[in-house]
Amino acid sequence: MLSGYLILKNIRTTQRLLRNFSSDTKFFKVEVVSSNRKTPLQPQRKSIAPRFEKKTRQKISDYLKQMATPEIEAQLAPLRAAVKEYGDLIRDLKAKQAPKIDIDKAVVELKARKKLLEETEIALAPKEASFDRLKLEDLLKRRFFYDQSFAIYGGVTGLYDFGPMGCALKANMLQQWRKHFILEEGMLEVDCTSLTPEPVLKASGHVDRFADWMVKDTKNGECFRADHLIKNSIEKLMNDKKVSAEVKKDGEDVLARLEGFDDKDMHEVITRFKFKSPITGNDLTEPIAFNLMFPTQIGPTGDFKAFLRPETAQGIFVNFKRLLEFNQGKLPFAAAQIGLGFRNEISPRQGLIRVREFTMCEIEHFVDPEDKRFPKFAKVADEKLVLFSACNQLDGAPAREVAIGEAVANKTVANETLGYYMARCHQFLMKVGIDGRRLRFRQHLSNEMAHYAQDCWDAEILTSYGWIECVGNADRACYDLQQHYKATNVKLVAEKKLPEPVDVDIVEAQANMALLGKKYKKEAKKIQTALQQLTSEQVTAIEQELLAKKLYNLDINGEKFELAPDLVNIKKYSKKIHVQEITPSVIEPSYGIGRIMYALLEHSFRQREGDEQRTFLAFKPLVAPIKCSILPISANDTLVPVMDAVKEELSHYELSYKVDDSSGTIGRRYARTDEIGIPFGITVDFESGKTTPYTVTIRHAETMSQIRLEVSELGRLISDLVSGRQQWSDAQAKYPKFEASAE
Amino acid sequence: MLSGYLILKNIRTTQRLLRNFSSDTKFFKVEVVSSNRKTPLQPQRKSIAPRFEKKTRQKISDYLKQMATPEIEAQLAPLRAAVKEYGDLIRDLKAKQAPKIDIDKAVVELKARKKLLEETEIALAPKEASFDRLKLEDLLKRRFFYDQSFAIYGGVTGLYDFGPMGCALKANMLQQWRKHFILEEGMLEVDCTSLTPEPVLKASGHVDRFADWMVKDTKNGECFRADHLIKNSIEKLMNDKKVSAEVKKDGEDVLARLEGFDDKDMHEVITRFKFKSPITGNDLTEPIAFNLMFPTQIGPTGDFKAFLRPETAQGIFVNFKRLLEFNQGKLPFAAAQIGLGFRNEISPRQGLIRVREFTMCEIEHFVDPEDKRFPKFAKVADEKLVLFSACNQLDGAPAREVAIGEAVANKTVANETLGYYMARCHQFLMKVGIDGRRLRFRQHLSNEMAHYAQDCWDAEILTSYGWIECVGNADRACYDLQQHYKATNVKLVAEKKLPEPVDVDIVEAQANMALLGKKYKKEAKKIQTALQQLTSEQVTAIEQELLAKKLYNLDINGEKFELAPDLVNIKKYSKKIHVQEITPSVIEPSYGIGRIMYALLEHSFRQREGDEQRTFLAFKPLVAPIKCSILPISANDTLVPVMDAVKEELSHYELSYKVDDSSGTIGRRYARTDEIGIPFGITVDFESGKTTPYTVTIRHAETMSQIRLEVSELGRLISDLVSGRQQWSDAQAKYPKFEASAE
Repeated sequence: MLSGYLILKNIRTTQRLLRNFSSDTKFFKVEVVSSNRKTPLQPQRKSIAPRFEKKTRQKISDYLKQMATPEIEAQLAPLRAAVKEYGDLIRDLKAKQAPKIDIDKAVVELKARKKLLEETEIALAPKEASFDRLKLEDLLKRRFFYDQSFAIYGGVTGLYDFGPMGCALKANMLQQWRKHFILEEGMLEVDCTSLTPEPVLKASGHVDRFADWMVKDTKNGECFRADHLIKNSIEKLMNDKKVSAEVKKDGEDVLARLEGFDDKDMHEVITRFKFKSPITGNDLTEPIAFNLMFPTQIGPTGDFKAFLRPETAQGIFVNFKRLLEFNQGKLPFAAAQIGLGFRNEISPRQGLIRVREFTMCEIEHFVDPEDKRFPKFAKVADEKLVLFSACNQLDGAPAREVAIGEAVANKTVANETLGYYMARCHQFLMKVGIDGRRLRFRQHLSNEMAHYAQDCWDAEILTSYGWIECVGNADRACYDLQQHYKATNVKLVAEKKLPEPVDVDIVEAQANMALLGKKYKKEAKKIQTALQQLTSEQVTAIEQELLAKKLYNLDINGEKFELAPDLVNIKKYSKKIHVQEITPSVIEPSYGIGRIMYALLEHSFRQREGDEQRTFLAFKPLVAPIKCSILPISANDTLVPVMDAVKEELSHYELSYKVDDSSGTIGRRYARTDEIGIPFGITVDFESGKTTPYTVTIRHAETMSQIRLEVSELGRLISDLVSGRQQWSDAQAKYPKFEASAE
Repeated sequence: MLSGYLILKNIRTTQRLLRNFSSDTKFFKVEVVSSNRKTPLQPQRKSIAPRFEKKTRQKISDYLKQMATPEIEAQLAPLRAAVKEYGDLIRDLKAKQAPKIDIDKAVVELKARKKLLEETEIALAPKEASFDRLKLEDLLKRRFFYDQSFAIYGGVTGLYDFGPMGCALKANMLQQWRKHFILEEGMLEVDCTSLTPEPVLKASGHVDRFADWMVKDTKNGECFRADHLIKNSIEKLMNDKKVSAEVKKDGEDVLARLEGFDDKDMHEVITRFKFKSPITGNDLTEPIAFNLMFPTQIGPTGDFKAFLRPETAQGIFVNFKRLLEFNQGKLPFAAAQIGLGFRNEISPRQGLIRVREFTMCEIEHFVDPEDKRFPKFAKVADEKLVLFSACNQLDGAPAREVAIGEAVANKTVANETLGYYMARCHQFLMKVGIDGRRLRFRQHLSNEMAHYAQDCWDAEILTSYGWIECVGNADRACYDLQQHYKATNVKLVAEKKLPEPVDVDIVEAQANMALLGKKYKKEAKKIQTALQQLTSEQVTAIEQELLAKKLYNLDINGEKFELAPDLVNIKKYSKKIHVQEITPSVIEPSYGIGRIMYALLEHSFRQREGDEQRTFLAFKPLVAPIKCSILPISANDTLVPVMDAVKEELSHYELSYKVDDSSGTIGRRYARTDEIGIPFGITVDFESGKTTPYTVTIRHAETMSQIRLEVSELGRLISDLVSGRQQWSDAQAKYPKFEASAE
């Protein structure tokens, strides 16, 4: 992963969920060509096309991967085989423990082959795959779905304000999320603070590792991500005819190893190659770690450091004890949180895909590490998901549609609980209106995952920016709870009843506090705590060393403490235990709502056949920002009482509406309401008020068909149509059809 | 207002909405006694009772003010008269333009009389007025409504995490708020970022004035609010017999003037009286302005200063143009925002009443300053509100129940729009379950309001902490939009059609950019902008000065620029205009959700008659965190299919439920569900599965009566009962009664 976070390898993979590099960059964005390749490939000229075009090409390519006809597949097959060849070779080299440089070079070749595969795909893609993002953006801006924050002050990149339409769309998505997960799965919802004290994020690993290396222009202070700068500079070098083969070879080696570089390595490269700022040509500073969390301080003293949370998950972990108690001490249970996350991106672009403040929904499902079965799994076992497994990625094989039950059975997906959440994720995304053909679950490669993670599948959605990670589904093992236990010495465990009581031999190291206090003063407490946390095996080892050397050097986070035998009492006894303390494993589905929303907007965007200027959004009623339009057929006062009755009826059922009483024709007004995706149009005409009870017509935007019914029936019917409890065909069967006048 | 923000007088009053000093402190908390009083009053010994007791006494007093019997009123009447006497005297002194010190002293006496009135009230209060906050807090903690954040890390004051119960209660309140205001009033909802660049908050006044003066212990750095420190130190002095009458007289003068002190005044006092840290006796620093916003930085360069927003309002103001356009250019319209606010309190206490991160709901209603009528006002005109007007406060008269129509007609409330929002606020608070007898609208005194504000009424709710400001309803005139216009030069105006076109004489000052650029280089643009912003009158004045002195000194925020006649062209012409540009006035209702929620919890708290240990919460179904309990009468497997059918039916209607399948008796289990305020209990018994369709019973917690019905009818019925579309009596009329077995 050339573009990934170099120093993040040991940290939670989901922390990258909302970062800029969409997954495409991980597999296809290698533009360097190895000179010792086995199969010659034409060197690719580095394209100077703007970001937008490149991305669009990418999208077309990815679109094709899902939609290819058999003829196109036939052309792609040999290229897929070429990729597979190198996938196999790499596995082989690894098995033989070949030198790292050989493996790294083979990886570069593999990536180049993938690149060729991709470019061929692009050439073969159908025209229909193209999509006009500018038209969508125009609509979104004009009808105020969202727009850049603080625009009258010049705007801030990576910050967006949602207008009435975007706000309602987002609120509806969140409500569905809450229903789909929290309500239907009986999860425990929490709402924790964004402000987070430093020690919490120190324990979670964010303070030390949630960072990018950055270099600055020594004169004007402009900042660049160090790995990106090196990569781009070397690529430039490779395309420069005046550069010697020797230097190019050197650059190639650097690229192959870049992923594993730390700050010193990068500084060495920048110095050796004399890389400068690409903008000014000025010198660059040494790499500086730039932490991506927003720092602040709590209270007036200035010494209480805090950050804005980079994810909501930590709030759940620190509340684990309360939540377990709320669940009467029983495992498994899931807690969920909907809230803000903040990440101080170095240079965010790509609209809602990469932002500095965002709404996320996270679930932490706590489960016995030895039993990750899921009681309701059978309910989803037949659900088919498009899975892009690590194997298929390495083989250059396409993603495959598989029943989740089968994927768990054959161990493609690690366990039932993870599989269940993937299926539920799929259902949720379908429910809100994501196009199933542009959705896949991509498994993380082993080097993408945190060292403690067991398995991870991102729900990726295909947009004009490429495949975008929108949801992470990860099995994170016991890491988080253990980290907070280490930091606080508060046990974050659950009790598991043993099938039958067992006798266990306990070996404990007890501090002799009287003597320890004398020798180590305030530090004594810390030593006592450290001794308490030791395992029986560790205590036995200490005992032996104390016997042999009359001294033991206790190491607490690098601090050494000399312990003589009189400072420690080793206690051994046998105990009958009925329950076992276990640190639960955590399965974590993590949803980036802004990204899903953006994908949904792209997938819902339509142009009228024959009139491409007439664009509209086809939302599902469930998430549509406004459920109904109310259109009086004229400005005549006689319609007012009916209008008022309609409004009141809709309000009773919490149905949002928009009155369009402007003077355009009904057809024009329908077009305006279609543009913002209003699914139901209520027309008040001259018949409406003639009889009591009042009647109106409802137009179903999708089919453009209409029915007539009493105002007092409106609320219940539309509420049922929105929730899916009734279908439009049910309504058509029940109520008389109404023939529309000229649209 | 001794305890108020000294340096905040010119800033928005609603910015204090969620601050610690509940309104009680403003009127009753004066414990100094004037020595030149007209009517001798017994000096009150300063009580050393803990904060809790003092607050409880306050609550009892306030409770009584609402609930006094005629007998008690008779005893209080002379004391009220004594207060009124001084209220009149002060008005008289002001009218005569008496020396400030005389007025200030009279104010101290007035406050002392109010104090006596209050203490008498306390003595007369009924025992029932007491309330056991510890019992409530125990329940809230035990059932995880909310608790201190990061408790396993030692906790952070002023930060709270909501558990499943608190979270659901809050979500339900927000959903009702959204329905009551945004949906029913057709408001434009926005969702803006918390991160806010410095210039925005500079323009709004927060950077300069949203601060408290603080002094620090010079040795250990401990912080104190300077005004509180002076007040407390002088009070100590006044009670010290060894202190001379002269010094006491001096201290008394300081107290009377403290409200108007700036940092230099306070430093002078601290130095003159030799005040030290009350904790250590160490010296204190000079007063330092401590801004209450959390500072941070955007991006990696370190020079993009930003803050976490202290309120959501500014996000609406900076989006005014987009919103006006969304509303097709028409006034009036209202925008609303639900979101987080952040305030870095110096030392927050009092639970949810004073927090550092909180959810607020704000409305900005933009209206023609010359026409603040409200079309729907007639609908609420008869609604009765308890109003505590500024007059009544000065007169020591109690709050009075008045129809809002009458209050607007007699100018007690400034205009219809403000009155409408007060009535809607009253409706909302009633709807969620606030006790109407413990709710009042208190008008700000003229010295409490920002200089530009026209009128302001806080909805105050009586709790065990006293009367708490929970909602601010303010007419803020045109201040905010004008400030952002000044800062950005983006016109934030609406067009108002004139009854008929008028000819106006335009006088403009145009910069001669060629010459100006030569002389002032980069500053020229700034000068041009400043000239454009001048009114006709200002331009005429400049013209005259240029003629007279051949020079004009232009002042831009303190910077002076010399303009010779050749740098400025004065242009005069006549123009026929059809529309007038107006800066809208803003009416701002601002809701502190956490405070309302806390008040609601107190008002919903009950103890069972005869068993005070059995406490419970009596929520309205509309906001109850969980709508239904599902209680199987036994663990028998035959009940499982019915249980599943019930769960599915409830999920269809998005109704939350809690299954209690523990082994306790039904009665015990009802008690447990009552404790967390579940309004409906669904019991699955042995009859349930015997017939198809399945049947179950519903128990209405409030009346403890039960009915029996089919499972397929559950969702619709409970949904209607929750929303208020049906009443329990309707359900009882429709479905057969079920006789409960022993509870």
